[in-house]
Formats: sequence, structure tokens, C-alpha cells
Amino acid sequence: MTGTKLIGKSTWEFQNDVRVLSSAATVGPMEGEGLLRESFDKIYPDLYAGEETWEKAERKMLEDAVSLAIEKAGLTPEQIDFYLAGDLLNQNISASFSAKTNQIPFLGVYGACSTSMLSLALAAVLVDGGYARHVIAGVSSHNCTAEKQYRYPTEYGGQKPETAQWTVTGAGACLLGRSGDGPVVRYATVGKVTDLGVKNPMDMGSAMAPAAAQTIQAHFADTGRSPEDYDLIVTGDLAKVGLPIARELLKNAGFEMGEHFADCGLMIYTQKQETFAGGSGCACSAVVTYGHLLREMMRNKWKRILVVATGALLSTVSYQQGEAIPCIAHAVAFEMEEGKEGKA
Amino acid sequence: MTGTKLIGKSTWEFQNDVRVLSSAATVGPMEGEGLLRESFDKIYPDLYAGEETWEKAERKMLEDAVSLAIEKAGLTPEQIDFYLAGDLLNQNISASFSAKTNQIPFLGVYGACSTSMLSLALAAVLVDGGYARHVIAGVSSHNCTAEKQYRYPTEYGGQKPETAQWTVTGAGACLLGRSGDGPVVRYATVGKVTDLGVKNPMDMGSAMAPAAAQTIQAHFADTGRSPEDYDLIVTGDLAKVGLPIARELLKNAGFEMGEHFADCGLMIYTQKQETFAGGSGCACSAVVTYGHLLREMMRNKWKRILVVATGALLSTVSYQQGEAIPCIAHAVAFEMEEGKEGKA
Repeated sequence: MTGTKLIGKSTWEFQNDVRVLSSAATVGPMEGEGLLRESFDKIYPDLYAGEETWEKAERKMLEDAVSLAIEKAGLTPEQIDFYLAGDLLNQNISASFSAKTNQIPFLGVYGACSTSMLSLALAAVLVDGGYARHVIAGVSSHNCTAEKQYRYPTEYGGQKPETAQWTVTGAGACLLGRSGDGPVVRYATVGKVTDLGVKNPMDMGSAMAPAAAQTIQAHFADTGRSPEDYDLIVTGDLAKVGLPIARELLKNAGFEMGEHFADCGLMIYTQKQETFAGGSGCACSAVVTYGHLLREMMRNKWKRILVVATGALLSTVSYQQGEAIPCIAHAVAFEMEEGKEGKA
Repeated sequence: MTGTKLIGKSTWEFQNDVRVLSSAATVGPMEGEGLLRESFDKIYPDLYAGEETWEKAERKMLEDAVSLAIEKAGLTPEQIDFYLAGDLLNQNISASFSAKTNQIPFLGVYGACSTSMLSLALAAVLVDGGYARHVIAGVSSHNCTAEKQYRYPTEYGGQKPETAQWTVTGAGACLLGRSGDGPVVRYATVGKVTDLGVKNPMDMGSAMAPAAAQTIQAHFADTGRSPEDYDLIVTGDLAKVGLPIARELLKNAGFEMGEHFADCGLMIYTQKQETFAGGSGCACSAVVTYGHLLREMMRNKWKRILVVATGALLSTVSYQQGEAIPCIAHAVAFEMEEGKEGKA
């Protein structure tokens, strides 16, 4: 095959200067009081964001993140060729309804909480391959819509174990193109679905850790890179329980992840905020990456980072039918070029 | 932009000989007694397909369609670089669990019944752009899983109006690569989400017709083609109610669709089979296209066809919250080269 961009087994190498033109993160009130409060573009004062229902609020947050990212790049929605988006709600309604609002040709994707990097990886393909000039990728989640759908009506006040995670309320969007000084999207590694038999939906970290470890290993194998090649490797939302498991699995595979291995679910809330094992949800890796990490890269804090978004692909029906939780992780590598500094 | 493959506003032109290597369709008993019974690779004797639940049966049908397509191309799952799939079930579980089984790096997509051409369009991008050698796209639906999830428990025996459609039980898969004599994937036109205010989930045809008309118009505008350039233009599942509306909308836009404008939902069942307005579901356009249309192309019945898969992107929650049904349609153009005849 001439001009191949597939390296190794499942990694795309982007050689055509695919860059982050802008990104935006919008969050709920609790995230707005967390560790990254200075990094977000918009903090809504309550969980309704001026809408009638939580679902409409989630959609509004996604619409706002997309609009903000487009505005920040000095573009208009008409100049965006494609919109790739997904969320956690049944039938991806936050994404689909937001695509009705912005009227950008729409490609719906679903990978649970891995949707952030799934949508970004495909967006990078479209820009790199000449299938688009500008593509925006977006995801959202909302604590109340997720609780209501996946677990119990929130009014029940159901108790949870310490292994449970807290779904982040918010949305993130990232606009890719081929100009500017922003971080370059260098690689994307597509994950395989894995499950080691974990069936407890109150312990997603344990379920997802093997998927994260597998994708990170695949990324190293495909690219020839190793942990030392990155200033930071972050998983999507393994949180307190899952991150040490992923670290251990990678150690057993011969990779010492060292100090620069972190998790988005552990970066977003303060210690005082009661979030069990930490954050989760599509918006977790998205608001951390698009709100915080990419901006710090533009300030030259890091030169190379790898974001490994993890997703638990269960449904309430698969759980009720006794199935284990199938998980996946997709990784995207961002790089700042030497001597460049972007608009943070 | 050099080497652009985006033509007009939202159409990709594939110039690198992207071909259908093989395709497969697996269906339930009712589809196996329908008009296309000779076209399917596998007909299950009952709705359980040897599994314990309908959801597991749907997954099995998808797994079988994918395996059959890979086998028919003389390949093994290890030789397939990526698997793009989606379905109608909450959290895309048929697709995700089937990806666990086949262990091919997985990209989940969601576009309701438009998922067939959504997954195929992205698969074509990956092959055309050099991001993959072989990509398989697959979708599934199951009458009982869809009824149970979207409407009432089937045991209720709820009555339906004549505008309702019958969700097809089955799955389709299509394997793309760059060799052989199969149909070439020439164009894909990505749709925008549209809604003209239809709120009745028992009348998807009326809701989806404007989306189909819009994407067909966009396809003509982007490519410079007209209805006469195709031997057949088929919509996904507009059925009896929606197809005439799409025809009328296109007529008002200046396009006489003529005799070669048809709908997959009207091609699958006999008149005697009671399916209200006709077939629907992700599997509808997939089993018709992958089981019937592509094979007839290989027998030189048609040289050029355009498949316009339509999707209604509602959820039970969006419906309950009083929202109209957002719809989308994605179109893929297939062509047989002069003087070629494939293995049907």
C-alpha cells in the first residue's frame, strides 16, 4: 500500500500537520469548584444550565462547547466541514440534537467515555487525509442524566461503594485543521474491546484498566515509543481504583510508567469533593484534555502527551443479562513543536 | 488543500480503487420468507438464533455476518485492520460485544438506521486514505429488541397504525479493500441533522423523508450528478409513507426521481407479510444492500447505485420530553466498472 498511514497494527500516523486550532470546555457547578476551575471556558451556576431538563442541559453544554471552540478559532459553523460527536445517553441524543442546532454535517460515534479520543482520532484522519479542512469533535456527559439512565433515579439517594466514580457534568470540543501554532496531533491508536470478567458497574476502574493497559502497549509496539518519550500519559477515567491496576499491568508487560502517568478522573475534583474513586464520563477526559492539558501544552509545560480515553461499553440490559463489562481505550498523541508557543 | 477528497460541501470522492471485497447478510425467519430470501447468507429458524435472549441473538447475527464476510473474502479476522459497527440498542451493545468476540480494533458509530452507510463511508475513508488495508463495516437490528426498547414489551401486543414500520431482524457486513473485481465505492455524502417537526415515533417515514431528500440533493450538488446518472437510488427505510414524500420534496427541488427510485423497506417483505408501512432498522438497508444490491451489481444488473440510509435519532427520553424526531441520511455511491463481473 502506497502512502500508508497505518503503522504497526492499529496506530495512525498523521504526517500532514494536523493541528488543534482551538478547544473549549464547559462544566457544571461542582467541576467549577474543582482543581481545574481556572481552565474552563464556561461554568454553569446549576445543573439545569437554564434548561427545563437535565438532558437538555447536557445538550446545551455540548452546544456551547462547540460554539465556543469555533468562535475561538475565528471561524463560523459554516466553515466547519464535519462534526463528530457522541455521549453516554441512549441513542446519543446530546450529540444528535446538538448537530441539529449547529447544522454541520454530522458523524455520530459511540465509545462510552472513550468517545472523546474516538471522535478526535477520526477527526484527525479526515483532516490529515484531505477529507476535510476543519473538523470539530465533541462529547458531553451529565451527572444526573447518567445516574438516572444507568443506575437509579437520583431522588432515591442510593448509596455507593468507594469504587464507584462520579460522572463529570460538562462538555468538551476540539477543532482540528492545518494551520496555526497549536499542538500537533501525531498519532492515534485504536483499541480492541477487552473484558477480564469484571461485572460490577460500581467498579468501572477495575473493568477499564486492562483496556487502557492494552492500548498503551499497542501504542508503544506500533510507534516504537516508550513511557520516557512522553512528558505525560493520562488515562481517561480509571480513577483511584483503576490507575494502579493499569500501572501494574503495564509493569508486568515491561513498562515502568513512572511519575508522569496520571488519570483525568483524579485531576478534576478536590480531595474534599466527595466523588468516591474520582471522575468519569465522556466529559471527564474531554474537559481535562481540552480545557487544561492542551492549554498547558501551548504554554510549553509539556512537549508530548498521550491521552488514553477509556470506555465501559455496558448497558443496563447487558448488565441485567449477566454479562461482564466490555471495555475499550483509544489513545491520541499530541505534540508541541520546538520553539513554538500557541495562544492558550 | 492539496490532494483534497472533499468535493462540494459534504461529499468524499474516493479515487484509490476502494472496493467491496465481500459482503454478507444474516436474517431472522420472517425476512427469510420475504422477497429477498434467496439473497441472504444465513436464515435463522427462530428469533433466538440459538441464544438465551433476543439481545444475544442480535449480537450473534452480527457476529455471523462479520465472520461470513471475512471468510468469503478468503481472509481471517487478524487481517482486518478495523471494525466499524453500530446498532439500535442502548450503548450500541450488539456492536461492542461483537467487537469483543472478533477482537478487531473497533470504532463504534451511531446513526440509528443510517448507521449502515455511516460505518461504510468511514470505512471507505480509512481504506482510501491509506489508514487501513481491510476494514469491515457492520450493523444489526432485531425486531424484538427494538420493540422492547423503543415501544412496549412485545408481550403487550400493542396495536400500531399503518404508518408504523417493522424493524428488520438481521445483520449485514461489508468488507472493503483495494483488490478484486467487486463494486467500487466512489462517493459518500455525509448528512446534516434535520427535523421538520414530526413527533410521532409511529411515523418514522414522514420524519426521515426530508433528511433523505436533503442528502440526495447535497449529493447531486456536490458531485454534479443527477438522477439519470444512477441505475438505482434507494433510500434506507422510508417505506410506503416516507418514499412518496421524499419523491415530492425532490421534485419540488427540481429533481424527477423517476422509476429507479426505491426504498429498502419496501424491497424486503412480501405484500402478504403484515409489516405496516414496510421494513426499518439498521439491518433493513444493510441486508438489502449487502445481501441483494451489491450481488446484483456483480451480476451486472446495475452499473451505478446510490444507497441513502436514513436514521431517526430519537430516544424514548427525547420523545417523552416532547422533542421532535431529528433525522439524518448518509449516502454511498457504488459503481461496477465496464466489462467487469465480480463473484456474486
